[in-house]
Amino acid sequence: MVMFDIAIKNGFCYVNGSFKRLNIGITRSKIGYVGEESIKGDITIDGKNSLILPGLFNAHTHIAMALFRGYAEDMPLMDWLKSKIWRLEAHLTADDVYWGSLLGMIEMIKTGTTCFSDLYIHMDEVAKACGEIGMRGVLCYGMADRGDENRAKKELEIGERFIKKWNGEFNGRIKAVFGPHAPYTCSIEFLKMVRDKANELGVGIHIHVSETKEEVDNFHSIHSKNPVEKLDEVGFLKDDIVIAHGVWLNDREIDILSKKGISVVHNPVSNLKLASGIARVADMLKKGVNVCLGTDGAASNNTYNMFEEIKLTSLLQKVKTGKADAIHAIEAFDMATRNGYRAYKITGGEIREGYLADLILLDRKRFNFIPMYNPVYAIVYSTMGCEVTHSIVNGEIIMENGKILKIDESEVYERIEEIKEKFLSIN
Amino acid sequence: MVMFDIAIKNGFCYVNGSFKRLNIGITRSKIGYVGEESIKGDITIDGKNSLILPGLFNAHTHIAMALFRGYAEDMPLMDWLKSKIWRLEAHLTADDVYWGSLLGMIEMIKTGTTCFSDLYIHMDEVAKACGEIGMRGVLCYGMADRGDENRAKKELEIGERFIKKWNGEFNGRIKAVFGPHAPYTCSIEFLKMVRDKANELGVGIHIHVSETKEEVDNFHSIHSKNPVEKLDEVGFLKDDIVIAHGVWLNDREIDILSKKGISVVHNPVSNLKLASGIARVADMLKKGVNVCLGTDGAASNNTYNMFEEIKLTSLLQKVKTGKADAIHAIEAFDMATRNGYRAYKITGGEIREGYLADLILLDRKRFNFIPMYNPVYAIVYSTMGCEVTHSIVNGEIIMENGKILKIDESEVYERIEEIKEKFLSIN
Repeated sequence: MVMFDIAIKNGFCYVNGSFKRLNIGITRSKIGYVGEESIKGDITIDGKNSLILPGLFNAHTHIAMALFRGYAEDMPLMDWLKSKIWRLEAHLTADDVYWGSLLGMIEMIKTGTTCFSDLYIHMDEVAKACGEIGMRGVLCYGMADRGDENRAKKELEIGERFIKKWNGEFNGRIKAVFGPHAPYTCSIEFLKMVRDKANELGVGIHIHVSETKEEVDNFHSIHSKNPVEKLDEVGFLKDDIVIAHGVWLNDREIDILSKKGISVVHNPVSNLKLASGIARVADMLKKGVNVCLGTDGAASNNTYNMFEEIKLTSLLQKVKTGKADAIHAIEAFDMATRNGYRAYKITGGEIREGYLADLILLDRKRFNFIPMYNPVYAIVYSTMGCEVTHSIVNGEIIMENGKILKIDESEVYERIEEIKEKFLSIN
Repeated sequence: MVMFDIAIKNGFCYVNGSFKRLNIGITRSKIGYVGEESIKGDITIDGKNSLILPGLFNAHTHIAMALFRGYAEDMPLMDWLKSKIWRLEAHLTADDVYWGSLLGMIEMIKTGTTCFSDLYIHMDEVAKACGEIGMRGVLCYGMADRGDENRAKKELEIGERFIKKWNGEFNGRIKAVFGPHAPYTCSIEFLKMVRDKANELGVGIHIHVSETKEEVDNFHSIHSKNPVEKLDEVGFLKDDIVIAHGVWLNDREIDILSKKGISVVHNPVSNLKLASGIARVADMLKKGVNVCLGTDGAASNNTYNMFEEIKLTSLLQKVKTGKADAIHAIEAFDMATRNGYRAYKITGGEIREGYLADLILLDRKRFNFIPMYNPVYAIVYSTMGCEVTHSIVNGEIIMENGKILKIDESEVYERIEEIKEKFLSIN
């Protein structure tokens, strides 16, 4: 009998779209065994009352914005940004970002997310927090040149320095990429520089594209093309690109994304909350685009609970297409797991031998899971987010019976209260 | 110092759209005191770490359908109904409805609902379950004559018998009304009979209206009018009517609802899941229609978690109107509380002296509530549903620290497993 670092015994495991009672053996950072044979581990977890899922991948967020959740709501978008959010961000220190990131990561872990993709400022602090709490992160510094050549150089330098410092750190848990903000805040020239530098360093690119109609209309009035078409024309697009939002894509753009192997992060709650629109997810899936899910920042959400995004993804496509079978539960769940890992080329998001051991356990005896005809439907349509009991990332248990193991939660909450007081004193 | 049956001390209480630290005194079924003075109670609840809210009102559901959740998903609507849901319903016994109702009520209580409006079959069992578990319920037997005169008489008899048997039972916790199913399953003649009988008995009417576009188009092709216009023409509409859904209403119909003081139950999750559409909630509110919220049955949801409906109500109106300020958090919350009680003319849904003591307590120290700039935003945009610790209905504590007090949960779950096995053996 092979000995594993961790043996999860007898749980209902999600494998290839259905649930089976299996044992899972973990060795170092990876899943070493999935099957019905009896196994042993240095640590044994009894999975009898659990659903065992690949960890969720929050593929687009600005995690430290947890600090801003509920600060101001229900305002016209530009007014909200200018008079509220941007004013707070102007007072945001590196230390604030560190504590805000830990707060957001606590919420992500407790609601089942094992890996996230973050684009923000003071990214050294995000990387540090991610390393300490034990999550996996795809991180990038958010760059914008706004047509200024000097700024372009400086931004690229910060982005490059971040990548060189952090890529592969914490036993490979950090993957660093480039984060040019968006085609409307970055010049085409700058995006070409980013493309060249990404090729040189062999890293990917995460970018916002076509979130609002106004943004696309403005872009079109300048470039006589939609953003994806223009980015394709200038050679920016390769399969190492992940675009966030993609709410306003035309058929040609969806074809380009499909042909070039580009992934799209759908952020349904944020897209509703900011009145951006409902993305053409069913159309993209039909064309073979790899669509994954994200929460966006907490200011436009206000949570990092990916189970909300999973359910809403399915519901919104049903009403958008007028078809109750527009998206199937398995597709929505795979978008939140496998597709996220695929987008960023990380071998995880499935319970499969050789894959990274990023797993979560859910209590399957909850009232909202009864009766359970099919656990896939329970997961997609009935989960609140508070059923998650254990989180394992990179082969390490980072939450056990609801308790975050590697940091002191209460210290985080205390520091957040201080930061909140600072923000409240600004107005 | 006045002595109360229950004193809730020092909690953050939702009063008129904002939160204040107050004491609440309860005497028998009612709130006897709300204020800052020190009070005493036979039972004292420390509210220091709680948000205290009026209980949520789930204003449209078919609660026993908790039995069907996740039985079949993501199918075209008619196929799903005919090959799955209606087949199960044909095998549904009174006993099944009793246990299914308890299951649904457990979920409602645990996620903060104190009162619900139910339209279904075997309603004696729903009333019995409601009485035992301690909730408040507006209940009706779902009637449909489908143009058959004999059936009309029989259905009305069952509806009337139910009202006479249960109205006012369990210390007034049961309110019984008439439940003609919908204008497309009930003839105009039958609806007039229901109207007359409701007038005679002095009870209200709950009815599905304009849930799907097909249904409205079909109705129009027969009657040359939309449903609400036709119901108005034949004298069916009075302020004792509550219509469920109202997804496809024209401007004239919204004006009629406003003028006649008719309430509409918005069911956002169900309307998305069945691809019915997005109701014109912002338009209705602007016209002064009393809009409340419901979950519909679990087969089309799949939960009874009203916090999902509250958040989604706000989000959907933002994207439907293109305005991030289309609905304010307070409006969405009041729809789920005060407006439900108003719709059914029950003096509750607000923390106010003289109002029924239907209250819930939420743990305000949860990670998803941090930081809390404004508890209203936390409640509407950040709540998962599992933060509810206590539920008080009609002045009686029915859940304490997450434990349902008046029935044995585990027995319910055991019986549901047996019913599930029966359903699985049908196919």
